Amino acid sequence: MKCRVCRAAAVVEVRRHNAGFCRDCFLAHCRNQVERTIKEHSMIEPGERALVAVSGGKDSLALWDLLLQLGYLADGLYIGLGIEGYSDESAVFARRFAEERAARLVQVDLPDDFGFDVRSAAAADHRVPCSACGLSKRHIFDQATLEGGYDVLATGHNLDDEAAVLLGNVLHWDLAYMARQHPVLPSGDGFPRKVKPLVRLGERETAAYCVLQGIDYQVEECPMSAGNRHLGYKDALNAIEERSPGTKAAFYGGFVDKAAQLLADIGEEGREGLHACPRCGSPTTAAQLCAFCRLVERATGQRRRRLPVSTQ
Amino acid sequence: MKCRVCRAAAVVEVRRHNAGFCRDCFLAHCRNQVERTIKEHSMIEPGERALVAVSGGKDSLALWDLLLQLGYLADGLYIGLGIEGYSDESAVFARRFAEERAARLVQVDLPDDFGFDVRSAAAADHRVPCSACGLSKRHIFDQATLEGGYDVLATGHNLDDEAAVLLGNVLHWDLAYMARQHPVLPSGDGFPRKVKPLVRLGERETAAYCVLQGIDYQVEECPMSAGNRHLGYKDALNAIEERSPGTKAAFYGGFVDKAAQLLADIGEEGREGLHACPRCGSPTTAAQLCAFCRLVERATGQRRRRLPVSTQ
Repeated sequence: MKCRVCRAAAVVEVRRHNAGFCRDCFLAHCRNQVERTIKEHSMIEPGERALVAVSGGKDSLALWDLLLQLGYLADGLYIGLGIEGYSDESAVFARRFAEERAARLVQVDLPDDFGFDVRSAAAADHRVPCSACGLSKRHIFDQATLEGGYDVLATGHNLDDEAAVLLGNVLHWDLAYMARQHPVLPSGDGFPRKVKPLVRLGERETAAYCVLQGIDYQVEECPMSAGNRHLGYKDALNAIEERSPGTKAAFYGGFVDKAAQLLADIGEEGREGLHACPRCGSPTTAAQLCAFCRLVERATGQRRRRLPVSTQ
Repeated sequence: MKCRVCRAAAVVEVRRHNAGFCRDCFLAHCRNQVERTIKEHSMIEPGERALVAVSGGKDSLALWDLLLQLGYLADGLYIGLGIEGYSDESAVFARRFAEERAARLVQVDLPDDFGFDVRSAAAADHRVPCSACGLSKRHIFDQATLEGGYDVLATGHNLDDEAAVLLGNVLHWDLAYMARQHPVLPSGDGFPRKVKPLVRLGERETAAYCVLQGIDYQVEECPMSAGNRHLGYKDALNAIEERSPGTKAAFYGGFVDKAAQLLADIGEEGREGLHACPRCGSPTTAAQLCAFCRLVERATGQRRRRLPVSTQ
């Protein structure tokens, strides 16, 4: 197979584009896809400061690298989740990436800074680990973005992630979740703008990007995600994609282009009734403390402190 | 496992209801599900005459039997599709069912009455066989219902069928198709009312109904449907259902209850610009002949006759 662009030998095949790429043209293809996504959805304007949520895995490191390559002002945010045999290693990849590029990495650690980890929080709050983890990360993302004075938070959700989440939401017609599943969530009501610039790249492509760009990333999946329902949705979509390449992109892209507008009113309703959490100030619909402050209280038996931040 | 209703030994398990049933209670369960569906959606009023589209397979014969058991006035409509090694056998099952119950079976035969079969029509019209077949059946369903003076056409689409079609429509966000995917399509603009009373029963349940009720049906699948994209969607949903029983019912039921109303305007648009086909009188949006009359013309090189009907 030859590179679609320059006819040199291809090293990567992207079946849904029915195309192969050589190394340099593939890296350029990824940059183009991300730049196009950012421009189309007005995700980041020139001169704005972005904070990239960095896990140490392929998606988030590819995103950070791509934003830097494209000339955006992008710092990283790493959250240590205290997951044994996983979090220590993921931190190494995030820190090494930042050091090699002399980039700024904001670091928050659940055990050191809040006194709990994902496993203990899940047990204390009677949640599955992925739920306690997601809640903690979303809260820290928002607060670190606002307190650091960033204009926008960028996450490394790729096409496979978004298509699987969308499938789960559609299978249960969770209209409120669907209304919020857009590549850009605008700022407002105490929330920072949040963007997903990788929604045009599949997970095979972000992995290939890292390999070809020489980015070392954590290959191991989180040990606590085994059996996660979204993995089942990914499997189902992969089986369909295998028969009909391009289905995932049509599914997610068609939702954003054609269906999301039907849900606009529902999305607005979701932000009604917000007030500031009396402890941390974050917007919440809960009667008293926000869900994160309640999680901290249950997991530690203590009142939480303000967001502690250390910078590399 | 014991019968959920009477505690006798269960012979059928329905995982999404987390229940087993003995023979009699399972048959009653099926009748209840169908009666509830008919009432909830005002599908058939007492005294109305229904025409049941009968293929000879488990779903359509179960439907016809259930409607008769529930006291509805229901005749059958069998369409011979001229598919070698399949259609002859399917006719035997449909006729035997009708004979045993002294029920009326309207019969239409594509080769005898229109001079073509599914294979030749597909080739002549450059369609896949399932497309030529579906087009022909929909046309004959409508016309036989109207010309026979029936109030409503009933088809045996089950939960698995509808969930798979919905998944295909959702994966491509075919909003116009989604807007028409309701268990009832009201009459109007030259179309008869169409109803799907089996949408609360899965295909394992319609098969079990036939077995336990002593209905002989054609087990063989249509040989022309191999590779049909919907079979891929069924496989994907079955894999998800296996992990999370009830997902299919939640997916289809949630669509009908929560999402369909968002598409109401789009459904209306689909019926704009209809006029009567100058040859057969059927409603069509095509500039001249309706799609079925064009199919007949291409497949036979001849003008079609009015719908011929023979009754058993």
